[in-house]
Amino acid sequence: MADPAGHEIDRLIELMSRLPGLGPRSARRAVLTLLRRRQTLMDPLARALAEVAARVHDCPVCGNLATGELCDICADPRRDGSTLCVVEGVADLWALERAGVFRGRYHVLGGVLSALDGVGPEDLAIAALPARIAREGIAEVILALNATVEGQTTAHYLADVLSGSGVRLSALARGVPIGGELDHLDDGTIAAALGARRPLGG
Amino acid sequence: MADPAGHEIDRLIELMSRLPGLGPRSARRAVLTLLRRRQTLMDPLARALAEVAARVHDCPVCGNLATGELCDICADPRRDGSTLCVVEGVADLWALERAGVFRGRYHVLGGVLSALDGVGPEDLAIAALPARIAREGIAEVILALNATVEGQTTAHYLADVLSGSGVRLSALARGVPIGGELDHLDDGTIAAALGARRPLGG
Repeated sequence: MADPAGHEIDRLIELMSRLPGLGPRSARRAVLTLLRRRQTLMDPLARALAEVAARVHDCPVCGNLATGELCDICADPRRDGSTLCVVEGVADLWALERAGVFRGRYHVLGGVLSALDGVGPEDLAIAALPARIAREGIAEVILALNATVEGQTTAHYLADVLSGSGVRLSALARGVPIGGELDHLDDGTIAAALGARRPLGG
Repeated sequence: MADPAGHEIDRLIELMSRLPGLGPRSARRAVLTLLRRRQTLMDPLARALAEVAARVHDCPVCGNLATGELCDICADPRRDGSTLCVVEGVADLWALERAGVFRGRYHVLGGVLSALDGVGPEDLAIAALPARIAREGIAEVILALNATVEGQTTAHYLADVLSGSGVRLSALARGVPIGGELDHLDDGTIAAALGARRPLGG
């Protein structure tokens, strides 16, 4: 392919095309949009990226992304310090925050156990967890791991590690998602939803 | 929604979500990917954006994007200076360059005539065109405008403007696109392809 607009632009397109959801074609469209809106979009985006790249680090307490010394959740005194939600990654933490009902704090593992990918307990933020529970006087740990084989393996491992700590352990409920149609759900979910069926008033 | 990771990240997600092809959800995924790959993706992208934003401007000759004084095409002495291809915008120029067969130079109008959107000839790079043709000794002008009502209106207007200049005028062929199925093509394309049918050897 010819190089109609200079290698700086090609390099920008190449970098943009590495983002999830953007292929080479949509990366090109995105860069053209940026070039058309240099003052209102390209300059602010360049500044925001540089600022975030310079300031964001992992929260030393929970592993969430932070721009201050602690992340906004660990730094917020209104959060309930007695309940800790263990998640695989920051994306899951964000998803739980969007749901807007959990008011406790988090512990980000940074992955899940996986023999296939060679991820062992020492690769995850597990060793610090018992000490954190004791130090912060945590009463309940919610294992909010994904309903995958690796997620559930990790949950079992954590339940073992924490079994002697006197903390209350729980996991997210299994069932039919809101809007879910039985016809499109897998057998495991239907079995779980049946097993955990709730009595209705009357 | 809570603000789990600081408003700098929210601002970055908001800016990313303004790019074509990225909604709020995929912008969030893109930013998470960037945050996971700070050294290998986020820093280079921030630098590439800042560099392009600082260096890119419109080529004073043809209107293409340029990082040097002239764009790479106007600056390339191997391009055929006798053939000029008139396009609506830079995206069309890139599309023609990707096809890799045109070796002349370009003239970017910066839009098309549109009574509806209030775009008149004075809003496009039309006034400079006759002088450019004379100055550069251009023999043929290819009107490579989109096959839309506005594109064809603009092509007719340009044909009028250039009628006395002695330059040879042409337009892109109409026909069945490669891979095109007649059943899915509009009547206008089929009529054009019939009218411009080519004799086959024999």
